[in-house]
Amino acid sequence: MLKGIFISLEGVDGSGKTSLKKELLCRLDAFHPLGLREPGGTPISEKIRNLLLDTANEDMQARTEAFLYAAARCQLVETVIRPALQEGKMIIADRYIDSTLAYQGYGRGLPLDFLQQLNQLSTGGLKPDLTLLLDVDPAEGARRRAKDTPDRLEKAGLLFQERVRQGYLQIAREEPQRIRILDAHKPLGTVVGDALREIQQLLTKKGWNQPGS
Amino acid sequence: MLKGIFISLEGVDGSGKTSLKKELLCRLDAFHPLGLREPGGTPISEKIRNLLLDTANEDMQARTEAFLYAAARCQLVETVIRPALQEGKMIIADRYIDSTLAYQGYGRGLPLDFLQQLNQLSTGGLKPDLTLLLDVDPAEGARRRAKDTPDRLEKAGLLFQERVRQGYLQIAREEPQRIRILDAHKPLGTVVGDALREIQQLLTKKGWNQPGS
Repeated sequence: MLKGIFISLEGVDGSGKTSLKKELLCRLDAFHPLGLREPGGTPISEKIRNLLLDTANEDMQARTEAFLYAAARCQLVETVIRPALQEGKMIIADRYIDSTLAYQGYGRGLPLDFLQQLNQLSTGGLKPDLTLLLDVDPAEGARRRAKDTPDRLEKAGLLFQERVRQGYLQIAREEPQRIRILDAHKPLGTVVGDALREIQQLLTKKGWNQPGS
Repeated sequence: MLKGIFISLEGVDGSGKTSLKKELLCRLDAFHPLGLREPGGTPISEKIRNLLLDTANEDMQARTEAFLYAAARCQLVETVIRPALQEGKMIIADRYIDSTLAYQGYGRGLPLDFLQQLNQLSTGGLKPDLTLLLDVDPAEGARRRAKDTPDRLEKAGLLFQERVRQGYLQIAREEPQRIRILDAHKPLGTVVGDALREIQQLLTKKGWNQPGS
């Protein structure tokens, strides 16, 4: 039994996960939360991330991509996430297993059962206690990120992002207890408030109070 | 149904796979065989190979390693092996699925069923028509390679290689039709002759004759 608390943030590109993570790490500072991002979070996983985001690798097959995500995640779970949860820490992760289903499955069309097996093998079945899905119209997400240079994955375009969004919503319907949908069209401050309410419910359920109380 | 012929070479480090492959490519030149090595064989797979063999990555978990091998193999199968076999080509591969079971399973102690699932997912179940296992005492293998600088995997030592050797022999006992054991203590010329006899049997069985006949 893992003592810690594991929260993941999901959503299409530009949905505001990175901004929300920054705010949550700040607002929950009393719990000394550990912020992570996927793919990445360990030296080896960062090298794998570089391979994945390299626009030169245009010949990369969808299944190869899925295995590389699984490799990066496996390293992160075994060397960071599981040890931290065993020590009772709080983790806030930018992307986790649902990204695999949404992007590689609903987005690129790989079979969901293939991806579910990969997720199971790479994590040993470890799921977050709570997943916050930042739901946003992909066109709005693209506007927010217009100034960034698109990497290989982002180049796949708006239709792809729309399939990913619908995939996320489907996944959320299948696990309503774990996955909570937040309306990410709202201003950041409102989204942060919505997220904190969900997290507070989880803390209460897990018997966590404010530290020192 | 794939028209080509798929031969893989297996064995511990220093068992002579590379020398045998070179000889076979030469002796079977009339069939225009395609020589491959794992991990590698595609630009993306070669980048993954560099990650795997990098001695700086000492923190790499055994399961992460297995996923990276699977990623490299998946890319090789989808972009090279399967298309070549569909065109009726002959492939001679230095390492394939049995290396995963022998090294990561019997060598590093990962569960065999985990690795068998990875092999199945990364290849879609594609197995070689014939696997030649070069069986050699690992100490003899090490002597042959004494002048090479050991990479991260080779550093794991002789006891590890001995477990790998015994693992290979176990795998060969389970699939005697596909996997043929060659005594690699013999001189190279003799091993080449033994290998060619096995290949000739396969060619006859598949209805392949000398090209032009």
